[in-house]
This record gives sequence, structure tokens and C-alpha cells, in this order.
Amino acid sequence: MKITSNIFEVDEIKLGNNTETIVKGGRHLFDKLPEAFLGIQQISIIGWGSQGPAQAQNLRDSLDGTDIKVCVGLRANSSSLEKARAAGFNEADGTLGEMYAMIAESDLSIILIADAAIAENYERIFNSVKPGATIGFSHGFVIGFFKNIGYQIRDDINVIAMCPKGMGPSVRRLYVQGKEVDGAGINSSIAIHQAINDHAMAYALGWAIAVGSPFVFLTTMEMEYRSDIYGERSILLGAVHGIIEAIFKYKIDIGVSPEQAFKDTAETITGRISNLISKHGLKGVFEALDEKQKEIFITAYNASYTPLKDILREIYEEVYSGNEIRSVILYNERKKIAPMGKIDDTYLWHIGEQVRDKRQGEVNDLDPLTAGIYVACMVAQVDILIEYEHVFSEIANESIIEAVDSLNPYMHHKGIAYMVDNCSTTARLGARKWAPRFDYILTQIAIPAIESKQIKHEAFKAFDQHLIHDVLDTCRQLRPSVDISIKD
Amino acid sequence: MKITSNIFEVDEIKLGNNTETIVKGGRHLFDKLPEAFLGIQQISIIGWGSQGPAQAQNLRDSLDGTDIKVCVGLRANSSSLEKARAAGFNEADGTLGEMYAMIAESDLSIILIADAAIAENYERIFNSVKPGATIGFSHGFVIGFFKNIGYQIRDDINVIAMCPKGMGPSVRRLYVQGKEVDGAGINSSIAIHQAINDHAMAYALGWAIAVGSPFVFLTTMEMEYRSDIYGERSILLGAVHGIIEAIFKYKIDIGVSPEQAFKDTAETITGRISNLISKHGLKGVFEALDEKQKEIFITAYNASYTPLKDILREIYEEVYSGNEIRSVILYNERKKIAPMGKIDDTYLWHIGEQVRDKRQGEVNDLDPLTAGIYVACMVAQVDILIEYEHVFSEIANESIIEAVDSLNPYMHHKGIAYMVDNCSTTARLGARKWAPRFDYILTQIAIPAIESKQIKHEAFKAFDQHLIHDVLDTCRQLRPSVDISIKD
Repeated sequence: MKITSNIFEVDEIKLGNNTETIVKGGRHLFDKLPEAFLGIQQISIIGWGSQGPAQAQNLRDSLDGTDIKVCVGLRANSSSLEKARAAGFNEADGTLGEMYAMIAESDLSIILIADAAIAENYERIFNSVKPGATIGFSHGFVIGFFKNIGYQIRDDINVIAMCPKGMGPSVRRLYVQGKEVDGAGINSSIAIHQAINDHAMAYALGWAIAVGSPFVFLTTMEMEYRSDIYGERSILLGAVHGIIEAIFKYKIDIGVSPEQAFKDTAETITGRISNLISKHGLKGVFEALDEKQKEIFITAYNASYTPLKDILREIYEEVYSGNEIRSVILYNERKKIAPMGKIDDTYLWHIGEQVRDKRQGEVNDLDPLTAGIYVACMVAQVDILIEYEHVFSEIANESIIEAVDSLNPYMHHKGIAYMVDNCSTTARLGARKWAPRFDYILTQIAIPAIESKQIKHEAFKAFDQHLIHDVLDTCRQLRPSVDISIKD
Repeated sequence: MKITSNIFEVDEIKLGNNTETIVKGGRHLFDKLPEAFLGIQQISIIGWGSQGPAQAQNLRDSLDGTDIKVCVGLRANSSSLEKARAAGFNEADGTLGEMYAMIAESDLSIILIADAAIAENYERIFNSVKPGATIGFSHGFVIGFFKNIGYQIRDDINVIAMCPKGMGPSVRRLYVQGKEVDGAGINSSIAIHQAINDHAMAYALGWAIAVGSPFVFLTTMEMEYRSDIYGERSILLGAVHGIIEAIFKYKIDIGVSPEQAFKDTAETITGRISNLISKHGLKGVFEALDEKQKEIFITAYNASYTPLKDILREIYEEVYSGNEIRSVILYNERKKIAPMGKIDDTYLWHIGEQVRDKRQGEVNDLDPLTAGIYVACMVAQVDILIEYEHVFSEIANESIIEAVDSLNPYMHHKGIAYMVDNCSTTARLGARKWAPRFDYILTQIAIPAIESKQIKHEAFKAFDQHLIHDVLDTCRQLRPSVDISIKD
């Protein structure tokens, strides 16, 4: 499985124990986009959720001055019509319209509606595509869903994916920041699920570069949805929430004040720890500790790695088996009678609000217990993905880079509970389901082990020589370091 | 769907809004057992877990003096061989032997091995049965499993179920106590999944009566496994654990001492509340409160009924869809590398041990907050089962009677964590999965509502006129009230 291109330079890089083909992005490549999109006159972005506004605007900006028209398609009477108009798409010049009409007239339709909406409307969506045209997704969910229901995709269209490894707002913001720092952006994976002509790969690459990816790697839609659904249930949302709940409770039990306990957990993860990992990798966290703190880190790491890995393995298997996708579909059927409530009204998150309100630019201490558990979780998450043979680009982006460079900075600003309450339905369901499991396994297994100093595992021994450190170093060299700007 | 019998008296009773056929048990019916088991010379109990020892001994005692031989079949080299010998089964007289050999020579083989073992060995088990013989289960799991894998059962054998609505040790203990109080025992459901002759129903009834059921009702194996797997994930194990975790934490947060918080939650549920429900029904709990406490109960009930019902509905759907059974199968494949840890080493359960050690026969206060939430959970569990059209006998037994008359008294003695750590794999997995969800939904939704006095729901309005009260009254009249004796 290799990226091939006559248009963009393809690099072979060593990542972990594999060689991968990647394409480095950047604004200097935008003049090659018309060649990459050969045969495409109209690209339509369908949906205006998280990725929709980001990709539609980035594509339009990148293709400015070419003959390729970038449009937005929405449900008739969609409440997002006004927002799309405010972003400059409009019915008058034909860049805004009803979604099925837009799909029917486009050469590339990029479907960015919610998973649930795909599950409800897939037949009409696929039937609307012109023969010979291309349909694109930013998530492999649809393939997992089709596997579940046994749906066969028609064979006269290209089916591709371009999946930014960060939330929509980050995709847009870093693209804008990229006007000053060329190459700033969110990395993406591409996948060619079905190719009916030689253009499919070029379209996927052009799409990734136009959206602003610093580097593009290859996966399959099957591997993408597994790692993506697994990732959001784990470190990106579920695990980070559960880890904070467990350690916060423990800190309170041993007499730490609530505000300090919040600083020692949520604040340090979304702030200092993320920043260190982003700039110096996982070892950077460990190296920033003094000797006594290093001991605490090692104990916490050893006590938590194995129980966390057990939950992570369970999550991966539940995703792989189709159970998680079935659960999402079941929820969509019952949501009218049992809508999800918010999680943000608990004691922990109220303390969090107070802490954020009082922030004055101070740098939080690096709590070694929290750091040990959080880093153990990232490594365990990586180890499961290695077992299931994901490529290292996907592993590093889905388990670490997306967390520290996209979600955590956003959560640092708005709060973790806010993020959990406002992400996609698939992710919200997953976070609700798995956060408590991470909390309980830490409370039941890891914390008693730390307390009693009865640590049975020596997982930390494998940390120093872990393949992931070099992988992160390489990934870091592939994109400029930019502190993402976060605004409301 | 009706019970029919020429041997035992069949009663029609009104339960809820339905009429059901039931058979009342008792020792006075034991002399009819040879007639019920017409054509059966040998009954083999396969497995020596929770139900195995209870049913094998009860059947042997009940059939004492008849020509029917009751045997036990185990894996060659099973570690339980010694225990079965200690209970009087032995190779010398042919009442103990290798399981497949036992199945092959039996007219009725009762398969009481773990779900996981059934999932692994089902082909050999079913292939070993003599043509024309009968295979029996005490759980519908196997049918859910077969639905999952698409396995077709051979059509030359009877397939029946007799499912005691209580754990094995209770089935044995109440049977022994029943020697003094005729009719004491654990209620059972029966199901005829496949009948190749007219005897199937009589065999199921005979089996139920021989094991000591005070009353026997009819269900299907499909409905049985749904209600059973749902029930153990809910009030029987998962919900009771999660409810206690949430309220305990809340009580600590508002300044209650840990010991008192444990008494206000776990102790009151497994002790006073269970006792009141067992003797006086759900209304008995409410009536035992003073006016001020009644207000707290109503607030707690109203704040928690809807969020609890949301989780309960999710559980039911996950069971119904096959997801939960698939999860159990997935666990069986990974258990060697990721065995389940114990839950009993946390602060909460350590406090519990201390509280139990200090018990001196005192009657705990009836905490109205805990009572309101616990009773709301039972009613919500009942309401979901009514929606899915289970018969009221099954609803009452699976949601209430099994809890207050079998599991809770046992947990009162040994601790809830002990129970969760020592039940069947299917149940342990379910309790681990769902207890944290009950905890989180209460912490995130119900407790903030109670605290802020912003209760949006008026679920309690339906409590007074609920059908379940009459159903419980009727069920109570069908079996003598016996305080189950609990020994280690």
C-alpha cells in the first residue's frame, strides 16, 4: 500500500519498524491543485458541522483563482444555511444549495454530515452521485456501517477519504495561521476505497493539500474508522475524562483541596503535559520532572499501564466487532425518547470553571502522578494499535498528535466537559460509555496498587526504547510547530 | 402461550393487565415426579458452578426412592470432581462421570456450565445428546448465542429451559429450609424451545418442582435471556453497585462520615429496604418513612427515574441487539491476556468491611434519598420490561423478587463487591460495564437536580397506581415468606 503521484513529491520515511510513503503539504503546492483535480469542475461540501465550515473555506481559499467551483450543500431548510451564507457561500452564485441537487451536479462530493445522518440517508446520497464522479468522506464510519448492514456500494464511482487528524475548528484555524507559517495545519490520512479511474489518488491528495495538511499518509477506510472511533473513546475524550475523574477523586480523598486537585489533573493534562508532548515528545514529560517526581511517575505508569491497556483492548475489539457502530445506530433510533444529557453539571467541572476563571497565565506544576498515568495511557493506546497493525502515521496522529495539538488545547480553553458535550454524536456516546470505565479501572486497580506500593507490572521498562519516540520526532519534523490559536 | 399439564394443577392468575398460567410447587407434589418424568431413567447435571450443586442435590433429594438416577457430568480432570464426590456423587455407582459420556447416556441432560463454556463446546454438547432425548438449560443464553452465530439446533431432541430466579446457593438453601416450610424455594420460569414429543412441558414442570420452585411460570428462552442478562446488568448487580457508588460519593461530598455514608447506601439497600420490599412490596418502603422523609424520597425518585430509565433502555437494547452477547464472546477470547481484576479493593468497599465487622444486629435507618433512587430504579426496570412485553411473572421475579429475596441478602452478608467479583463471567462483565454508567448518570443528572431542586420530571405521580404493586402482592401469596438463611 503506497502513495503514488506524478504531481506531488512522494517521500519514503521510516516510521517505527516500517517504511511509509507520505506527501508533505504546504501553500507552495496550491498551484498544482488544478492538475490534481483534473476533470473536476465542481466540489461540493455536504454538511456544516465541525469539518464542513473548515474544509469548505480552506478548499475555496486554496482554489481561489482556479476554475474549480467550491460549493456547499445542505438540507433544504437547514438551520446552517445562514452560517454558510455568512461564510460567503450563497444561492445567487450557485455555491450554496440543497444537498442532493449539489451532489448530483458535482464531480467531487465531500460528505461531512453526521454519522447518524449518513446512516439514515446513505441510499439517497449514493444514488445522487453522477456516474463516474467521486464521493469523499472524512471518516471511515460509513464503511463500518455498510459492513454492518451488508450494503454494497455501486461500482461506477470513486470512493475516497481524506481524514484530518484534528477537529474542524483546528483545521480552519491552523490553515489561517498557515498563511504566516507555511505548512501549519492538521495532518491527514487518505484512503482509496474504490477507484474506477486513475484519478482517485490524485483527488485525495489534492483535497488533503488544499485543506492544509502539513503531511498526508495512506490508510484504508476500514483502518481509519477503527482507529478513529477507538481514539475518541480513548485518549482523545473517554480516557482523558475518566483519568481526570479518577485522580481528582483520589486527590480529594487524600486531602488535596478541590482547586489544587483540578490543577493537578485536568489543568496539567490539557496545559503543561500537552505542551511538553507537542514540543518534546513523551520523553519530554518525564525529563521535565525532578528525581523524586520521576519515581512517582514510574510508579503511576507501572500501576496503570496494564489496567488501562485492558480497557483499551476492549474498546478496540468492540469497535472492530461492529458493536460500537451498532450502539450508535441504536442510539439514533431512541434519541427522541432518551436524549443524551450534559455531563458538565458535576462538582468536578464546577471547580474547573472556577479554576479557569482565576487563571492569570501561570504555568501549572507538572503533577507526576497524573503525568505517569496519562503517558501510560497514550503508550498503551499506541501498543494496541501496533498489535492491530495500523501504520505508525495513523498511530501517532490518532493517539498523540491529535490530542496534544488539537483537542487538548481546545479543552484547556473551554473545559473538557464542554468538549464532551459538544462533539459528534458518535464521539459523545463513546465518551459517555468509556470514561467511567477508565475511571473505575484506575480506582479499582491502579490506585490501590499505588497506595499499597504493590506494583505487579514493570511496563515502564519498555518506555525508554519504545518505537513511538522516534516516530513522534519524525512527525514533528514534518510540520512546523505552531501554538494553535484558540478563540471562542 | 399457556402451561398445560395433566399431572400438575395449572392455575390462571391475573398479573398486571394479563392472565398467566402458573403451577404452584411444593413437596406434596414430589410423588408425581415419576409421572412427569415419564420415559426418563437418567437425568444428568452437567457442571458444578453456582446452579450445578444446587440443582443436582435438590433433584436427587426430590427423586429419592424413585427409579430415576440423578448424575453429575464434569470435564475429565475437572477441579470440581472432588466437590461433587463430597456431595455424594461418585464414579463407583455411576452417578459421576465425564460430561460427554454422561450426556450420551442420559434422557435429560441439564447443561449448567458457564456461558463461555457453552459458547466453546456447543457442537460437541448438542451432538452428544441421544436422538429423542431432552437437553435443558437454566438460562436462555445459548439461544441468544445461536442467534448470533446462526447455528441451527438439530431437530430430533427436546430443548427446554428451567430458570430459577435466584442464585444457586439460594436455590439449595431455600430447598433445605423448605423441608420445614413446605413451598419455600426460588421461583422459576420454564420455556419449551423445541418439542419433539408431548413430554417436553411435563419434563420442564417436573424439573422446576423437583428443584423446589414455589411457583413456575412460562416464558420463552429468547425472553428469558433478554430479561436475565438485562436484569443482572441492572438492579441485581450493575445498578445496585452504581447507585451505591454515586450516593456514597455524594454523601461524602456533603460531609457525611464514610461509615455513615456506607450505612446510608449499601447497608440500607441490602438490609432494611430489601426486607421491606420482600415483606410489604415497593410501597412498603415509602410507607415506612415519616412525612419529611417522604418528601426526600419523592424528590430523589423524580430526579433519578428518567436518567436511570435511559441507561436501562440502553442496556435492554444492547442485550436485544446481540451486542452484549458478542461482548461476552470477545472477552472469552481475550481473557488469557486480559483477565478481569477485582473491584473490591477500593475505599468504599474497605469501609464496607469495617461496617460489617462492627454490626451488632442493629436495624439501619432507612435513608430516604437512597430509598427513592433504588425504588425508582426498580420501577424504571419494570417499565422497560413492560414496554418490551415480558410477562409480569418474569418482570416481578427478575426485577424485584430475585433482588430482595436472593441476591441482596447474600450481598448483605458477604458484601456487594464480593458478589460482583464472584458471579458468572457474563454477569461480572455486565456489572463492570454498567455500574459506572449508573454512577455517572446519577452524578451528572440526578444529583445536580436534587441539589438545585430543579426536578423536571414527575415520575412519582405514576408510582401509586403502578401495576407492579398488585403483581408483587399476588406473587407474595404464591410462596411462603421465609427469611433465607445465609451461611458462608
